[in-house]
Amino acid sequence: MEQKVREIGSRSVKITDAFWSKIQQKVIDVVIPFQEKVLNDEIPNVEKSHAIENFRIAAGLSEGEFYGMVFQDSDVAKWLEGVAYSLIVKPDEALETRADEIIGIIEKAQQPDGYLDTYFIIKEPEHRWQNLHECHELYCAGHMMEAAAAYYEATGKDKLLHVTERLADAIINRFGSEEGKEHGIPGHQEVEIGLMRLYHVTGKEKYKHMARYFLEERGKNPDYFYEEKVKRGWQHWGQYSLDKLDVTYNQAHRTIYEQNEAVGHAVRALYMYTAMADLAGTDADERLYQACRTLWDNIIQKKLYITGGLGGNSEGEAFGPAYELPNDMAYAETCASIAMVFFAHHMLEMDMDGAYADIIEKELYNSTISGMQLDGEKYFYVNPLECEPGVSGKLFGYRHALPVRPGWYACACCPPNLIRLVTSLGKYCFSESASTVYSHLMIGQIAQTQKAKITVETSYPWEGHAVYTVEPKTDKVFTLAVHIPYFVDFTKEGAYLSVNGETIPAAELSIMMKKGYVYLTRTWQAKDQVVLHFPMEVRKVYANQHVRENAGCVALMRGPVVYCFEGADNGDLLQSLRIPKNLKAEAYLCEDGILKGNVLLLMDGYRMAGSGELYSEKPPVKEKVSLTAVPYCIWANRGENQMRVWMLEEF
Amino acid sequence: MEQKVREIGSRSVKITDAFWSKIQQKVIDVVIPFQEKVLNDEIPNVEKSHAIENFRIAAGLSEGEFYGMVFQDSDVAKWLEGVAYSLIVKPDEALETRADEIIGIIEKAQQPDGYLDTYFIIKEPEHRWQNLHECHELYCAGHMMEAAAAYYEATGKDKLLHVTERLADAIINRFGSEEGKEHGIPGHQEVEIGLMRLYHVTGKEKYKHMARYFLEERGKNPDYFYEEKVKRGWQHWGQYSLDKLDVTYNQAHRTIYEQNEAVGHAVRALYMYTAMADLAGTDADERLYQACRTLWDNIIQKKLYITGGLGGNSEGEAFGPAYELPNDMAYAETCASIAMVFFAHHMLEMDMDGAYADIIEKELYNSTISGMQLDGEKYFYVNPLECEPGVSGKLFGYRHALPVRPGWYACACCPPNLIRLVTSLGKYCFSESASTVYSHLMIGQIAQTQKAKITVETSYPWEGHAVYTVEPKTDKVFTLAVHIPYFVDFTKEGAYLSVNGETIPAAELSIMMKKGYVYLTRTWQAKDQVVLHFPMEVRKVYANQHVRENAGCVALMRGPVVYCFEGADNGDLLQSLRIPKNLKAEAYLCEDGILKGNVLLLMDGYRMAGSGELYSEKPPVKEKVSLTAVPYCIWANRGENQMRVWMLEEF
Repeated sequence: MEQKVREIGSRSVKITDAFWSKIQQKVIDVVIPFQEKVLNDEIPNVEKSHAIENFRIAAGLSEGEFYGMVFQDSDVAKWLEGVAYSLIVKPDEALETRADEIIGIIEKAQQPDGYLDTYFIIKEPEHRWQNLHECHELYCAGHMMEAAAAYYEATGKDKLLHVTERLADAIINRFGSEEGKEHGIPGHQEVEIGLMRLYHVTGKEKYKHMARYFLEERGKNPDYFYEEKVKRGWQHWGQYSLDKLDVTYNQAHRTIYEQNEAVGHAVRALYMYTAMADLAGTDADERLYQACRTLWDNIIQKKLYITGGLGGNSEGEAFGPAYELPNDMAYAETCASIAMVFFAHHMLEMDMDGAYADIIEKELYNSTISGMQLDGEKYFYVNPLECEPGVSGKLFGYRHALPVRPGWYACACCPPNLIRLVTSLGKYCFSESASTVYSHLMIGQIAQTQKAKITVETSYPWEGHAVYTVEPKTDKVFTLAVHIPYFVDFTKEGAYLSVNGETIPAAELSIMMKKGYVYLTRTWQAKDQVVLHFPMEVRKVYANQHVRENAGCVALMRGPVVYCFEGADNGDLLQSLRIPKNLKAEAYLCEDGILKGNVLLLMDGYRMAGSGELYSEKPPVKEKVSLTAVPYCIWANRGENQMRVWMLEEF
Repeated sequence: MEQKVREIGSRSVKITDAFWSKIQQKVIDVVIPFQEKVLNDEIPNVEKSHAIENFRIAAGLSEGEFYGMVFQDSDVAKWLEGVAYSLIVKPDEALETRADEIIGIIEKAQQPDGYLDTYFIIKEPEHRWQNLHECHELYCAGHMMEAAAAYYEATGKDKLLHVTERLADAIINRFGSEEGKEHGIPGHQEVEIGLMRLYHVTGKEKYKHMARYFLEERGKNPDYFYEEKVKRGWQHWGQYSLDKLDVTYNQAHRTIYEQNEAVGHAVRALYMYTAMADLAGTDADERLYQACRTLWDNIIQKKLYITGGLGGNSEGEAFGPAYELPNDMAYAETCASIAMVFFAHHMLEMDMDGAYADIIEKELYNSTISGMQLDGEKYFYVNPLECEPGVSGKLFGYRHALPVRPGWYACACCPPNLIRLVTSLGKYCFSESASTVYSHLMIGQIAQTQKAKITVETSYPWEGHAVYTVEPKTDKVFTLAVHIPYFVDFTKEGAYLSVNGETIPAAELSIMMKKGYVYLTRTWQAKDQVVLHFPMEVRKVYANQHVRENAGCVALMRGPVVYCFEGADNGDLLQSLRIPKNLKAEAYLCEDGILKGNVLLLMDGYRMAGSGELYSEKPPVKEKVSLTAVPYCIWANRGENQMRVWMLEEF
């Protein structure tokens, strides 16, 4: 691993990107206010949240019973974290005041010893910390820490930060490897991320130390959850019981250093990997970094959908076996893809390898934002790569994979996760080390790094063109390292990188390029311009032969965008369509309708027509047809219809 | 519909066929004795059956508690039915004596009012007939009636027949459309078949009348099971509860005349269709015949696996939506394919259409006998068309589809069903009307029809050659109608039909041929010989474009036999193999190893080799390889390995 470099923080970045500003705006104007109303139980026909009311009751400000999931508190935390980032993107005094009020309630709900979880405060104060396996107390604590750190960074206000410091101290008092402490670990990882965030904001070693404890304790005693269950007399929480105690589900089967395969619940796993990578970079811990690499490689080589989706097994919302990536049965939870961005981001900080930035791009342009309807009002939790009306969302095996985005779920994990990803997008754009400013993503923005103000103008992902205008804040030499997406080939016609209008010859570029970044070192002058340009070709992608589902198939990509075919454009029986061997696809900007502003693909292809019989010895006949593909991330915006990412190819 | 013709009965047929004699022998020598031991709880490491002991307890011959499923009695009934047919194939005095003893116990267990069901006699005498939905009393009764009829036909002994007549009378007393009677219907159809069998044996109209009642009452009140549940205070039987009351599962959602789609539990459905077809033919009931046709056509056109498997939805062991025929998730229960033989057989009796005989062949050579391991010792209940070790039998969605045949199940439906099919094979071979003897199947045998003794010698299904030697018992003109399998084309070289060495010209044959049968009318002389000969080509079969799973794929058949590819012959990654457009497959007789005696296929094909990456823009490269296909019915006899019926084809 290399010297860890740090993100410059979303505070220092203003997104001006055509593609992303629209999404940020949707999230800020639609999703955040909607969720606020849900949290306050102001939306009819949405399952009662009661989440803020739970805090009020716990604070003694209201009377009543706890209502909701055992992890209901986390909904408030995630919303607050999203609000924090949104206040950076778009200051909103009224919203901030309302957030402050909620923080005030949370503070009042906190117990004198620092404990904070409304389910147990209200309902079972005698059972605190006795069911780490199912009861999400540490998970909720982690989200509250993330919210507190974000809110402090966004507003400078430290009330929630202090609340979560007290909470963290209560956790430190109770858990740990020291004698007399409970050797506990969370059933759902997240507190590790929260503690690292607290550490980064406060600089207090004890929080980082505690994050390491939770990570390294995990799997040391694979029977921990079982023993906990015996100890509490086999009680379990409400409807939520993981009776089988398959601890691979919680990644508690082995220590993190012994885990060499991504298994179990994908979000749990990826939250854990995220904290591992953060800690490895922060402590320059080579062993921990190698553990991260092992898991990363396993995912990249065997368990990642082309869309960036993670989790091929809907049972347990989990990673499946290697190469077992069913398209129509995929789980590919929106939250898992978001978590993969977190993981990749921390890996990138340790190793400036464009492969990580490429994965962040893959996630951002595909399996994360596919979770949100274009109007911002409905959400997919599950992002399948094939949809069959009448089967998807209906039949055994497919019930989780809905054909259209439903409204708000009672278990509202994905929409608030999308809020925080989209509003904090700025922090994934640039990193900075002593010598170098790294640009990871081609996203239009104005970034204030320590060494320069850098303005990026681009029409990416629709066009391969970006202009980086540098206004240095120093007269010393420094390096601007620009990430070149993996599919850009400077030896091909039309691809170039120029500095102040002077194209750098390909041969020279290849010397300046290291692991996906072009390193431009010079004494930068105001208004220096770097232009990155490359043709956006439609690329055919093939899956490994081990992937049963994709045998004989091809998927289309253009830039980082994965395309899919929908019935709305192509008629029914997408399985009878064939992509030609010599594909000539024309990309065009959709200028009207709900898909307006997106680049679609138009191509010639074939449709196989057979007899009407169920089985026939007459080979089907191929007919020429015109086919249209749309970006995967905007599928299912035109009602229920068939969809496929992987299409059979002419052999 | 035509005048109903009747089977000649398995008593009148002696199977001498190389292919089938071996299977009959395996069933008689291995499966029947094994099941007898199971029923008597004499096999260690097999879940206790207790079925005969239940009868003993009910008869007052033993003390103890009922044990087993609520339908445990049916295991004894099915075994007795199989024994009956086996005594025809191979007389066995000792076996017959033991069967007589069991029948004696059953007789003693029967209650004075005719009631017979050991679960309720022993355990809940006060709850008889109160849970038709779940409790299988009528189902068990139906199987006992079938056993009684078979045993009477095989041995001439009528003790069990009288038991079941008394039982049928008790049922008639209780149920019916008349006022004062309970308007009940069975939760699992079968009693309808049993009553028809009783009718055919005894000639008593009341049994046929009762079968009609159960068929026609069905669906008149779709809430019947719900109302029954309310009436009994929501009690349900043991672990067996169909709480959801989705009455399409039991085909009770509409009347039989309104049902136009095969839905729900496949075995329940097919038992019902079987009884419907039997009754339609028996009563020359055109309306009922049309109802059967509608359901038949729906299955043939939209819901049948190429192997003859039925039931694409493992949830509810049920028919899925039209064309939704997943290969690796198939249910395709052995029992459903056996029931399809019953259904087809009765349809054929009403309409001498070779299409029905072709389906009987499809079932016999593929998805029925695939249920049994070559050594007769292990059984598949589920017959998938694709198997992936590590996934099949293991992962969510695939747990039912085991990669190798397991041993005896507690719920032993399929092995005894196979016993009765295989031992009664003779009855599917010939039918006879006033003017005509119909030969349906190319199976080596000596058949005693009323008009002639007919000896069939054949090496089918491995070779397309059969010799029918006729020894007439009359000097009057009669017709021998020989079924010509649908894939035989007399206009092609090598295919011919000759009588006493004289080949009938193709043009003449086409006139003599009607719906798949060649009608040969003459005054038959002793030793007259009809020879049917046709080349056995390997045929490529394509699925309808609506079948998502089989898009781009081809399956191979030779004669009635469907082939599959196994890892044992072809290495791993069967999905990376391609069948050439211009296939040249060589059929050869396997001469050693466990597959000895089967005709395998050898062919050139391709293997696609890609990069080791999960996704790559480099198209996979094709390599020539040699491929081997084996009959589907003998798959999984060489340990756990990958298997596919549908293979991607060169485009």
